[in-house]
Amino acid sequence: MNIEIEIRKKPLIVINYKAYPSSFGSKGLQIAKAAERVYKELGGNVLIIVAPPATELRYLSEYTEVPVFAQHADPVNLGANTGYLPLEVLKDAGASGVILNHSEHKLRLSEIEFNVEKARKLGLVALICADTPKAAGAIAMLNPNIIAVEPPELIGTGIAVSKAKPEVITDTVKIIRQVNKKVTILTGAGISKAEDVRAAIRLGTTGVLVASAIMKAEDPVKIISEMAEAAMSEFYGGR
Amino acid sequence: MNIEIEIRKKPLIVINYKAYPSSFGSKGLQIAKAAERVYKELGGNVLIIVAPPATELRYLSEYTEVPVFAQHADPVNLGANTGYLPLEVLKDAGASGVILNHSEHKLRLSEIEFNVEKARKLGLVALICADTPKAAGAIAMLNPNIIAVEPPELIGTGIAVSKAKPEVITDTVKIIRQVNKKVTILTGAGISKAEDVRAAIRLGTTGVLVASAIMKAEDPVKIISEMAEAAMSEFYGGR
Amino acid sequence: MNIEIEIRKKPLIVINYKAYPSSFGSKGLQIAKAAERVYKELGGNVLIIVAPPATELRYLSEYTEVPVFAQHADPVNLGANTGYLPLEVLKDAGASGVILNHSEHKLRLSEIEFNVEKARKLGLVALICADTPKAAGAIAMLNPNIIAVEPPELIGTGIAVSKAKPEVITDTVKIIRQVNKKVTILTGAGISKAEDVRAAIRLGTTGVLVASAIMKAEDPVKIISEMAEAAMSEFYGGR
Amino acid sequence: MNIEIEIRKKPLIVINYKAYPSSFGSKGLQIAKAAERVYKELGGNVLIIVAPPATELRYLSEYTEVPVFAQHADPVNLGANTGYLPLEVLKDAGASGVILNHSEHKLRLSEIEFNVEKARKLGLVALICADTPKAAGAIAMLNPNIIAVEPPELIGTGIAVSKAKPEVITDTVKIIRQVNKKVTILTGAGISKAEDVRAAIRLGTTGVLVASAIMKAEDPVKIISEMAEAAMSEFYGGR
Repeated sequence: MNIEIEIRKKPLIVINYKAYPSSFGSKGLQIAKAAERVYKELGGNVLIIVAPPATELRYLSEYTEVPVFAQHADPVNLGANTGYLPLEVLKDAGASGVILNHSEHKLRLSEIEFNVEKARKLGLVALICADTPKAAGAIAMLNPNIIAVEPPELIGTGIAVSKAKPEVITDTVKIIRQVNKKVTILTGAGISKAEDVRAAIRLGTTGVLVASAIMKAEDPVKIISEMAEAAMSEFYGGR
Repeated sequence: MNIEIEIRKKPLIVINYKAYPSSFGSKGLQIAKAAERVYKELGGNVLIIVAPPATELRYLSEYTEVPVFAQHADPVNLGANTGYLPLEVLKDAGASGVILNHSEHKLRLSEIEFNVEKARKLGLVALICADTPKAAGAIAMLNPNIIAVEPPELIGTGIAVSKAKPEVITDTVKIIRQVNKKVTILTGAGISKAEDVRAAIRLGTTGVLVASAIMKAEDPVKIISEMAEAAMSEFYGGR
Repeated sequence: MNIEIEIRKKPLIVINYKAYPSSFGSKGLQIAKAAERVYKELGGNVLIIVAPPATELRYLSEYTEVPVFAQHADPVNLGANTGYLPLEVLKDAGASGVILNHSEHKLRLSEIEFNVEKARKLGLVALICADTPKAAGAIAMLNPNIIAVEPPELIGTGIAVSKAKPEVITDTVKIIRQVNKKVTILTGAGISKAEDVRAAIRLGTTGVLVASAIMKAEDPVKIISEMAEAAMSEFYGGR
Repeated sequence: MNIEIEIRKKPLIVINYKAYPSSFGSKGLQIAKAAERVYKELGGNVLIIVAPPATELRYLSEYTEVPVFAQHADPVNLGANTGYLPLEVLKDAGASGVILNHSEHKLRLSEIEFNVEKARKLGLVALICADTPKAAGAIAMLNPNIIAVEPPELIGTGIAVSKAKPEVITDTVKIIRQVNKKVTILTGAGISKAEDVRAAIRLGTTGVLVASAIMKAEDPVKIISEMAEAAMSEFYGGR
C-alpha cells in the first residue's frame, strides 16, 4: 500500500489510541484487528489507520494490515538521546506515519517543522493537529501530508465539532486551501458516531481523527464499522 | 507615537538586549539613551526600538522616548501564575510591543497564536522570530505586526545573514508576501555593521533585529548611529 | 538589614503577588506599602517579604523598606538568553531573594540546584517550594535558606493546610529536620486568616507563604496586620 | 527473578541503549542477546540490565532473559494522554524498571517523585540519575531503588568518572548513606572499559550505568564480558 497516495484518494479514519487501559496489550491488538476487519469488509475503500502507544508499534504493524502511526515523535535525531523516540526509531518499529502537535502534546513551531521535514525524507506521513483555523493555516505552510483540526474544548466530550462548531471546519478548510491545495484535511474532537463522520466529510474534510468513542466502546467493531460505512457513502456518494 | 503605524512607514532597528552584563542597570539605560539620541538626530525617520529584560521595562519606558519592547511574554492570563509575566503585566510596565519565539526562546505554535491574538487586543506590537523561510510563512498566517527571520546558526557570529545567506532573506520575503501583504519583515542574525543593515533593506526587508553588535560595543552610540544612517539612506534613497 | 540572619530569628510572612490584577502598578505598590507599615508598627519583629512580578522589582525595592523577592529565576547565566531572567539581573533590580519551584512553576531538580548554588554565591535568599513532605526532604539536601511546603490541592482554596492537613506540616518539619537543622520552614497553601498563621507556627514552622488572601483583599493592611500580629504573639509568646 | 532483591545482592551493569543506530531492530536485539549470554556464562552472578527505546521493550523482554528497563516514563497516568508513555504502559510491554532524570532527559522534582511512588506501587524498579552528589542526596530522600551518579560533562567522553573525578563518587556515596542506607548506587558517565567498572565498585558503588562504550562497540559481547568479569571479581573478591 502506498499510503501517501491512499490518503489523497480515500476517506480516512485515524484512530488515536491515546493511553487508555484499552490502548495496549491484547485490547490494543483487538481494536487494530477490528479496524482491519472493517477495512477489508469495505473493500479497502475507507482507509483506517491506528495510532497506538510507541510500545505497541512493532507488534501491531506485524500482526495487522492497517497502517500504523505513532502518536508523537521527539524532535531529535539518532544519537545520545536517552528516553527520546526520533522518527527513525518509530519507522523501524513499523510506523508509516506520525501524529504531531495534538492538543494534549503541543509542540514548538520549530519542532513541528523539524519533524515534518524529516518525515518527508523518511517517507513517513506527517499528520499535524491544529487547535484553530489560523493554526491550521500556519501548519499548511509547512506542507505536511495531513492536517486535523481539533478545537481542544470539544476533545473527549462526545460533542462533535462538526455539529457544535461547523464553522470551525469550514473556516479551516477555507484558510488552508488559500495556501495549500494538496494537504488532506481531517476533522477531530468529539467525533462519536457515524453522523459525525458524515458531517465531517460534508463540511469539506476527508475524514476524522477519533479517540475515546472507539477506545472506550464496548463493541469497537460496531462503531468502527458504522463510521467507516458513513465515510464511504458520504465520500463516494457525494461525487 | 502610534507605533503600529510607524513600523509600516519607517525603517526599523530593534535592539534585543538579551541578558548581557550591559543589558540592565545604568548600562542598559545608556544604550537606550544612545538609541534615543540617534533617533532624534535623524529626525525620527528611523524607528529604533529597545527590548530590555523585563526588570528594566518600567525604568526605560519612563526615562527614554524610544519604544520599549519585552523580550518574551508568558502564554498565560492574569491570575494565579507565580513567576510568569503575561502581556498585561508587561504593558502596564511600559512595553509597547513584545518579541516572541526567538530562537533562544522557542514557543509552541499555540503559544505564539495565543500571544499574537492577545497583543492585538491590548494594542501591543507582536514581533515574531522565525528560524527559516517556511516557519516565517507559517507565522505570517497568524498575522503579527512584525516577523524577523533569524537563521539560528548565524546568531551571535558577526556573520550577517544578509551576506552569508541572502537567499534566506529573499525566500522569506517571497513566501511571506504570498500570504500576507501587510506584515513588516526584519532581518536578524549576525547583523554587525552598517553594511549589513543596508543589505537587509536591499533584500526587501524593512530593517534589522540586532543584539550583540550593540550590546557588546565599546561605543554603542557610534554603532547605532552608523546602522541608523545606513537604514535611512538605503530605505529612503531607494524610493 | 541582613536578611539571611533575620529569617532565622523572626517569624516570617512572605507575600507571593503572583500575577493578579492587583500585583503590579500602583496596586502592587500599595500592598508593599501596607506590608512596610505593618512591619514598622510591629517594631520590625515580624519579617514581611513581598514577591512581585519581575517588572515591579526595581520599583518596589526603591520605594519600600521591606525585602523584595523575585517569584522565579530562569536557570541560566548572563549572556545570550533572550527573554530569560537570571538571578544576576533580578539582584541588580533589587531582589534580595527568590522563590523557586512553586507548584505553579515547577522546576527540574537540576534547575533548583543550579539556582540555589548561584543564589548563595550572589548573597540572595533562596526560598524553595515543596509539594509534599518527601519533596521537602529532598530539597533540604540542597541546603536553601527557606523551604515552604504547599500541598497544591489547597492553593487558592482558602482552606488552610494547617487546618485541613496539619500532619503534612508536622511530617515536613520532621523529615527536613532529620537532614537539615538550619533551614527555615514556612507553611503555604490556603493561608487565609490570622488563625492559619498561628497554627503554622504552632506546628513547628516559622511563618507562612501567602498569596490570594492578601492580593484579593479589600483591605490589605488589615489582613497583613492581623496575620503579622498573630505571628508575633505565637512566635515570641511560645518562647 | 525477583529483581528488587537481585539489585541488592549482586554487582550491576545497566546498559542504556539511548537512541543510537544500534539501539533498535536486530542490532538492539543482538546486544540484549550478548548481555544474556554473558549473564549466563557468569552463572547469573552479575546482573545485566538492558534499557532499549520504548518501541523495543515488548520485543526484547519476550526474546531475552535479562531484565529490560525503559529509558524514561512520562509523568502521567493512563487516560487521554496522546503521545505519552506512562509506567503502566511500559510495564505491560515488559519493562521491569525505568531510568529517570538522565542528564539528557532531566525531570522536575515533582515528576521524579510521581514516578518513584508509582513505580513502587506497580512493582517496578526506579533508577534515578543524578548530576551531582548533592542532587544524589536529594534523590535519596525519595527512596528509589537505584541512584546513578553521572557528571554530565563526562557522558560520552570515554573518560570515566571513576578515574577523572573519583571524589564525585565517594562524595555521592557518603551523602546518600547519611540519609538512605538501602538504595543501590551506580557509577555512570564515561565508563568505557573493565577497569572503570572495577574502580566504580572499589569506590563504593555496586556497578555501572554504561551506554556508548557498548552501543558503539564492534564486539559488544567482548566488552560486556570484560566489564561483567571485572564487576564479579571486584565485587565478590573484595568481600
